[in-house]
Amino acid sequence: MHRPRVAVNCAASIDGKLSSAARKGIMLSSPEDAVRVMRLRGSCDAIAVGVNTVIADDPRLTVRGTGGKKRPLRVVFDSAGRIPPHSRVLDGTAETVVFTCKGSGLSLDSAKVITCGQGRVDLRRALAHLYRMGVRSLLVEGGGELIFSFLSLDLVDSLTVYTSPIVIGGRASPTIADGPGFRRSSSFRQFRLVNLRRLGEGFVATYVPMRRERSRTPDK
Amino acid sequence: MHRPRVAVNCAASIDGKLSSAARKGIMLSSPEDAVRVMRLRGSCDAIAVGVNTVIADDPRLTVRGTGGKKRPLRVVFDSAGRIPPHSRVLDGTAETVVFTCKGSGLSLDSAKVITCGQGRVDLRRALAHLYRMGVRSLLVEGGGELIFSFLSLDLVDSLTVYTSPIVIGGRASPTIADGPGFRRSSSFRQFRLVNLRRLGEGFVATYVPMRRERSRTPDK
Repeated sequence: MHRPRVAVNCAASIDGKLSSAARKGIMLSSPEDAVRVMRLRGSCDAIAVGVNTVIADDPRLTVRGTGGKKRPLRVVFDSAGRIPPHSRVLDGTAETVVFTCKGSGLSLDSAKVITCGQGRVDLRRALAHLYRMGVRSLLVEGGGELIFSFLSLDLVDSLTVYTSPIVIGGRASPTIADGPGFRRSSSFRQFRLVNLRRLGEGFVATYVPMRRERSRTPDK
Repeated sequence: MHRPRVAVNCAASIDGKLSSAARKGIMLSSPEDAVRVMRLRGSCDAIAVGVNTVIADDPRLTVRGTGGKKRPLRVVFDSAGRIPPHSRVLDGTAETVVFTCKGSGLSLDSAKVITCGQGRVDLRRALAHLYRMGVRSLLVEGGGELIFSFLSLDLVDSLTVYTSPIVIGGRASPTIADGPGFRRSSSFRQFRLVNLRRLGEGFVATYVPMRRERSRTPDK
C-alpha cells in the first residue's frame, strides 16, 4: 500500500514538553525557527495535526512568506468529530481534509470529511487515501498523541525537533510523544541523529528511524 | 544562606523521558556518556537523587574509573522515608545522607538521616545543611520530581541533558521535569544554551539559567 513520506516536526522545551499542563497555545518556536518551519511547510504536499492541537492552538496551517505559490493540503485527524466549526483550519483559504471515524456524525461545509476506521482513525488507510489524492509528502506537526500514533505504527520517515531553552515541567504537560508509550526497551523506537545545529537561542535535531529488527536472530 | 553550586545532569530520550511508564530502570546513557558522567561525578562533592530513583533504579552513586581517589557524598531526598533498607546507596562504600521529614520515622544504620521540613523536604535548608558539612558542589541526577523541585525554587546553576536517539513515548512516563509544572509562560524557567555537542549516538546540551525578572518594569 503506497503512502506519502511522513516528516514529523515540532518545537519543544528542554524537558520535551509541547506546552504547559494547561495546554494553552504556546509559541515554543523562535523567529529563526519559524522561517525554517514555513520553508518546510512550503515543501510538503500536506500538513497534518491532531484535533487536540486544533482545539488548543487553532493553527491556520498555511504557508506564509513564500509568495503563496503553493497551498499544501491541510489535514486534521479527528476520530470523534470534535473539531470546532469556526476553527481557522476551516477558513477556506486552503483545501482541508478531516479524517474521522464511523459514527462521529461529523459534517463540515468547508472541509472534505473522510470516514476511515472505527473508534480511532486508521492512519495507514488515511495515508493510502492521501496518496491516492496525490499527496507524496506529509508534514505532521503534532500533538504528542498523534505523533505517538504515527511512531507506534512505524509510519515516520524523519523526526525534527526544535528545542527551545526553557523548562515547562509537569507530569501532565503534553510531550513530543504521549499515548500509552512503549513499555519495554525492546519496543522503544530507535533513531539515527542526522543533523544537529544551533538555531536562534535553541537548536534543531533531525533524526531518521533505524530499521526495526523483525526477528531476534542476528544478521550475518 | 550559603548553598552548594547545583548542577543537574540526566539522560533522556528524544521526547524528554527518563524511563518508560513502567518506570523500569533503563540505561539511556551511552558508553561515551557514561565516561562523561563518571568524570562529572568525580568533580562534585556530593551526588543527589530522589527516593523514586533509588526505588526504580537502585543506583550505587559511586565514581568508577577514577582510581577511587574521591568518594562524593551520596544524598537521597526522601520526604516520606520510603528508602528500601537494602538499597545499594546504603551499602557503606561511601558516606550517605538521607534527608527526610518530621514524622517519617526513618532510621538507618548505614546513613546519616537528617530531618528537614514538614510534608516535603525543605530543599533550601537541606542545601544549607550540606554547605555546612563542606559540600560546595552538588550533582542532582534525578528523577523528574526532584529536578522540578530544584528548578521551581531557582536552585539550579547548570542543567545538562544527554539525549539518546530513541523515543519512549507515554503520557505517564517520567520526564526531565515533572511535578505540577510551570503553568504560565511567564513562569517557565528560561535558560541559555552554553554547549551543544554530539557524543556517541546522541548529543549533550548544557544550559545555564537566565536571571529571572523580579519586576515587570523594563530595565534601562
